[in-house]
Amino acid sequence: MPAPFSPLDPSFTPLCQASCLQVDSLLTPAPPQVLSGCGVYDGTELHEASAVLVHLSRGGAEVQIFAPDIPQMHVVDHTKGQPSESETRNVLTESARIARGKITDLAKLSADNHDAAIFPGGFGAAKNLSTFAVDGKDCKVHEDVERVLKEFHKAGKPIGLCCIAPVLAAKVLHGVEVTVGHEQEEGGKWPYAGTVEAIKALGAKHCVRGVTEAHVDQKNKVVTTPAFMCETELHHIHDGIGAMVKKVLELCGK
Amino acid sequence: MPAPFSPLDPSFTPLCQASCLQVDSLLTPAPPQVLSGCGVYDGTELHEASAVLVHLSRGGAEVQIFAPDIPQMHVVDHTKGQPSESETRNVLTESARIARGKITDLAKLSADNHDAAIFPGGFGAAKNLSTFAVDGKDCKVHEDVERVLKEFHKAGKPIGLCCIAPVLAAKVLHGVEVTVGHEQEEGGKWPYAGTVEAIKALGAKHCVRGVTEAHVDQKNKVVTTPAFMCETELHHIHDGIGAMVKKVLELCGK
Repeated sequence: MPAPFSPLDPSFTPLCQASCLQVDSLLTPAPPQVLSGCGVYDGTELHEASAVLVHLSRGGAEVQIFAPDIPQMHVVDHTKGQPSESETRNVLTESARIARGKITDLAKLSADNHDAAIFPGGFGAAKNLSTFAVDGKDCKVHEDVERVLKEFHKAGKPIGLCCIAPVLAAKVLHGVEVTVGHEQEEGGKWPYAGTVEAIKALGAKHCVRGVTEAHVDQKNKVVTTPAFMCETELHHIHDGIGAMVKKVLELCGK
Repeated sequence: MPAPFSPLDPSFTPLCQASCLQVDSLLTPAPPQVLSGCGVYDGTELHEASAVLVHLSRGGAEVQIFAPDIPQMHVVDHTKGQPSESETRNVLTESARIARGKITDLAKLSADNHDAAIFPGGFGAAKNLSTFAVDGKDCKVHEDVERVLKEFHKAGKPIGLCCIAPVLAAKVLHGVEVTVGHEQEEGGKWPYAGTVEAIKALGAKHCVRGVTEAHVDQKNKVVTTPAFMCETELHHIHDGIGAMVKKVLELCGK
């Protein structure tokens, strides 16, 4: 009997989860998700990305996944929290691990073809999609990330972001309201509370929210939730992302 | 102001999700999860691993994450579905991306210290935890995976597995009942239905179950669910894994 999984077979084709459809429907909200690698310390926080996909799937949405075709800022050994001195990885290629192979270069993402855009967090948002991890309030945002945020905003289409990703909106969309959770560390429950100062310095308004809540900037149609900015149990983060996705889908108006 | 995320700081310490506690409680079920890398085609299917962690968190369980400290069988470029000719990665190191840094060598996992064991799927279960991807019914199982399965089984502690991982139980625990879903491809809905024949050839009993269901082998305390063996929407897979985790926690009897 042939082996039912044949990884060395040259005809092997990646399997795509059924929710990763490439074609928009007129009736179904179709928000793309923009990734930044695979792994919290040098890419997308994969539990956040997975939660976004689960909640989009439950909400009946079709999703297409994008990432920039660029080298990662660095590769972090997640057992040590230390960057490798020699290894290089590509953001699009590593993000494909979350997308199960179905992924498109971010350069090809146009707001014309989609109803909303969602950016999960992880250090990748602050290292690969922007330079926030190094430059703080003086950060630069990757040109396609900036273009995409401006296109969806201009078109009045909702944008969802979680964890550290709201800094991208704070930098690109002047005066936007976002949350990254609470504004004090509270004994380690909010270890990245210092991010709030950078968000304010960028000209954005910070709104305090709990980890299971989403903040909606109705005027700008920007929806944010703290996710892993909070030290808490995973299902609370999953539920907060669910609240964010639900609001994004409501704002799609379909 | 210093950058709030400082990846180059030598004092940088990986953040651990609060649910990854290392110490068992007398009242809280504490099942370890065994990983095989990070990414469906050469490691753990990360959406399955994340769903296991979300449902364990919601069930009030404490979880410790393990993986073998061995090279991956190969590294697959997930945008192409093709293995790299030169790149090597380590199973423990890549699994740490899912574990957010909090992970232990599988060699140190003893059933004495835990209430149950859970194995998510992904090709890693068939490539790194065993040779099933290459050898089918003639596969070998990694010695620590075999030891762990036998230890939990002998101690009467439940074992949960999903997707392709049930082949590990089928190989190691003679006569066990498992499900990998339906037994016919049904027009592509169950693309890996051929796995059923290998499971039967290994001496196990296959039980047909839908993607949102879990099968419980009460005698052996083995709980299985099809997960990504089915081509379906992601939330159905998430819910099926929830059913599996719920049964595992019930069998813990805490």
